[in-house]
Amino acid sequence: MSLQRIGPRSGVAVTLSRGDILTVMDPEGGQVSDMLAISAEDPAEVLSNGRTFDYEETLRLSEGARLWSNRSRVMLTIIEDRAPQHDFLLTPCSEGTFRHFYPDKPLHRGCFGNLAEALAPYGLEPDAIPTAFNIFMNVTVGADGKIAVLPPGTQPGDLVRFRAEMDLVVGLTACSAYASNGGSFKPIDYRVDAGAVETAG
Amino acid sequence: MSLQRIGPRSGVAVTLSRGDILTVMDPEGGQVSDMLAISAEDPAEVLSNGRTFDYEETLRLSEGARLWSNRSRVMLTIIEDRAPQHDFLLTPCSEGTFRHFYPDKPLHRGCFGNLAEALAPYGLEPDAIPTAFNIFMNVTVGADGKIAVLPPGTQPGDLVRFRAEMDLVVGLTACSAYASNGGSFKPIDYRVDAGAVETAG
Repeated sequence: MSLQRIGPRSGVAVTLSRGDILTVMDPEGGQVSDMLAISAEDPAEVLSNGRTFDYEETLRLSEGARLWSNRSRVMLTIIEDRAPQHDFLLTPCSEGTFRHFYPDKPLHRGCFGNLAEALAPYGLEPDAIPTAFNIFMNVTVGADGKIAVLPPGTQPGDLVRFRAEMDLVVGLTACSAYASNGGSFKPIDYRVDAGAVETAG
Repeated sequence: MSLQRIGPRSGVAVTLSRGDILTVMDPEGGQVSDMLAISAEDPAEVLSNGRTFDYEETLRLSEGARLWSNRSRVMLTIIEDRAPQHDFLLTPCSEGTFRHFYPDKPLHRGCFGNLAEALAPYGLEPDAIPTAFNIFMNVTVGADGKIAVLPPGTQPGDLVRFRAEMDLVVGLTACSAYASNGGSFKPIDYRVDAGAVETAG
């Protein structure tokens, strides 16, 4: 599979079999991609930032880290990380986000609306959309707990690779919010490569 | 209403009308209470740590902070806080948590199981249980992002008060995990006081 492009402020759904490798690349630098994963077998099993923080014991999820579901199962492992950072604290930007942070800007459905549309055919209700794993997003936490959203430090071509640890449907966006990508809306590239699954016996 | 007691390693559901004041107290000190809130009108509207971090722009939620729902609406406001800290990063302890962190200890359904049982009559499915607001829980985040769970710094009688900003059902526990309360299992006390709601016109 060659690189596929997600246009600015849009999203896609990608199906992954266990063992597949998902590569997500920032082609121009400075862009964010919100990633959501649900079990291909049951859309009620979704990515959980709280379970992931519990089990990985860090907010800084990079190479080697596993992303966990609400059922305490590993959904994805970060097998390669050539990006400066990711975020798992903040929810996908949405109409509510735009009203709150950008009251003078045109309303947009945001990554939330894009993920909702992309994943609706797989049975995910909008209310069930949890905090996404925000690839390339630059969120800092001060010693006093204060959260700041800064432009991503990614350079063109920076990428991260995930291995699917179960059969998944993954929603992936090119982010729509102003703050998370420094005010510019850019595309995101991705690719799926079939992986070798270790079989028992 | 006088103080009600939640026994060690158990949980309750409490209904709140808009304007009601919920007081949660640590009677002996060093205990944690996981709190979950759902809309009384629709259990698909639940507390969201990601939305709360988005809008409050801090991990340190104390007096004046609002706790937001997945629909970007304020569910609760912290109107008084006499406790050293709370946490909104980590999920309720569960059978999965116990298997992971305490493989040599007896399995327990944890706060997750207690919240699931308490809120089932109100239509909340276990898979829809998000990260709870962990009252009195002492979670530190290092400069490198590393997360540590320390015993709560609460003294006997430390309390926090919330005002309900919509009609809610709130799940509340006395925590079941070893690390979050320093290895002791203690009760939690709470009280609901009817509040004055400002009415329009």
